[in-house]
Amino acid sequence: MSGDALVFYSPVDDANDWREALSAELPDLDIRVDPDVGDPADIRYALVWLPPKGFFHRFPNLKLVTNLGAGVDALVRRDDLVPVQFSRLSDTGMISMMTSYIVYTVTRYARDMHIFERAKRRGEWEYVHPRPLSSISVGVLGLGELGSPAAAMLAKMGYDVSGWSRSEKSIEGVRSLTGRAGLETILAESEILVSLLPHTLDLDGVLGADELALMPHGAKFINASRAAIVDEAALIAALNSGAIAEATLDVFSVEPLPSDHPYWQLENVFITPHMASVTVPALAARDVAESIRRVRAGKPPLHEIDPARGY
Amino acid sequence: MSGDALVFYSPVDDANDWREALSAELPDLDIRVDPDVGDPADIRYALVWLPPKGFFHRFPNLKLVTNLGAGVDALVRRDDLVPVQFSRLSDTGMISMMTSYIVYTVTRYARDMHIFERAKRRGEWEYVHPRPLSSISVGVLGLGELGSPAAAMLAKMGYDVSGWSRSEKSIEGVRSLTGRAGLETILAESEILVSLLPHTLDLDGVLGADELALMPHGAKFINASRAAIVDEAALIAALNSGAIAEATLDVFSVEPLPSDHPYWQLENVFITPHMASVTVPALAARDVAESIRRVRAGKPPLHEIDPARGY
Repeated sequence: MSGDALVFYSPVDDANDWREALSAELPDLDIRVDPDVGDPADIRYALVWLPPKGFFHRFPNLKLVTNLGAGVDALVRRDDLVPVQFSRLSDTGMISMMTSYIVYTVTRYARDMHIFERAKRRGEWEYVHPRPLSSISVGVLGLGELGSPAAAMLAKMGYDVSGWSRSEKSIEGVRSLTGRAGLETILAESEILVSLLPHTLDLDGVLGADELALMPHGAKFINASRAAIVDEAALIAALNSGAIAEATLDVFSVEPLPSDHPYWQLENVFITPHMASVTVPALAARDVAESIRRVRAGKPPLHEIDPARGY
Repeated sequence: MSGDALVFYSPVDDANDWREALSAELPDLDIRVDPDVGDPADIRYALVWLPPKGFFHRFPNLKLVTNLGAGVDALVRRDDLVPVQFSRLSDTGMISMMTSYIVYTVTRYARDMHIFERAKRRGEWEYVHPRPLSSISVGVLGLGELGSPAAAMLAKMGYDVSGWSRSEKSIEGVRSLTGRAGLETILAESEILVSLLPHTLDLDGVLGADELALMPHGAKFINASRAAIVDEAALIAALNSGAIAEATLDVFSVEPLPSDHPYWQLENVFITPHMASVTVPALAARDVAESIRRVRAGKPPLHEIDPARGY
């Protein structure tokens, strides 16, 4: 009889943190960290981030693959998947981290903090009279498990918030927009635009030069989802001309961002090193354990994903 | 018979904005902007910010003085007050502004944004692994009409929040501390300390060298209330030694902050030009009008203050 083990693989996450957090939730779980997997036939569950090609085929009894993060674009595009159940992480720690990142970056522009940062470096007292938050329009592209709570918190803080998503959403204080017409509306009306869009195939380059040109002159852009949803050359041109006044970027087509990339030279670009939201093992292990319990009982895991659908 | 007029005086606020906002609420109100006050006997209400010495004695029928702001320290210390009713502003616009300022400045440190600002200027990708917000202790000194909502919002975002106030407060997610022992506890346990203390006489210099020394090494300090609550020389010494790693200051003993002040040279000090919270006439006029209606009806105004008590 084969075992009931989990294999862990990640080039960036700490295996010991995960072993400790998972053992606290499921003391009986046999956890093996690649490459020390023992008998591959024992492996039923895989908790992975960017595993090498062919990884899944090594485990004949695999039942569940859990993606170590919320963004599943790299996983669903693989051509070496096996017909098992798939899930992703969506822990409350990740949600409160992303919400804090979005609230911070929106408020930096809404309260003129980027102007005060620069004034401080020049040693100058530069007063800008504040505007009420209710007069500042913020658009959130993507109202998924990270976008919805972020939009809701912005509304609670008093901003004038709109959101754009595939299907209509009901979030207190947030105007819901959908479809191509909704996209054009939110682009045209948002003083501050936030992307939390997943990188599904139909959203590849969804913000091209034509779409960026719809934004109000001097708008601000924040991208905390995937670099590929925006046309980088068009964004750089808009930032150089001032059509887009400021941008905050957490995601890049190559990471770490190469030192000769033009973003580094643009004073109106704030760069954060892909830290908007990360998984916290102590918080996320609860969901991973619950998904394993469900799959053991023949039920679908939490936060199930369908690779064919792309999310 | 004398009239029922209001006199407006402010060296910084826009009289036309206020006239428009008040007229919308009380169309019958006779509004006069100093020095065009007409017959001083007509004046029943004064809406003022830092009026000149002797101002109140000019109006024999004055009944109500409303302070054009939340901070009343300059008003209650005057030696030329008259025995009338006093109130201050506390509009929802001011509260959401202050909350956004506190959330922003706390999150700047909690999410390591000050490190990324500096890395961007050097053109370097410097990764710092994020910590869950629930592991970051934030102390809020002062849980009044601005401090309470700010502390509540920090708790909603997921921070570990304590608050210190004169009397015990019940705010969801916020540990309430009082008295000298409570002050010493919140100083010793807060990684990020926020002051929203009013500048009452007993709080003058409440954060001296001894109190700052109780803070954890490398703590961060945010002051959005009054400069006089902290010993400036002790704060500068702590910022130079690194005992306090970072500070964000919105208030200064002299404003604008003189260009030769040492704060300008400290890279670990973020300076904002006293903009954390300002009154928005369109939102605050409702309360001013309601106070006038109440005083006309022989009742106490909203947000009444007692100059003898100091708040």
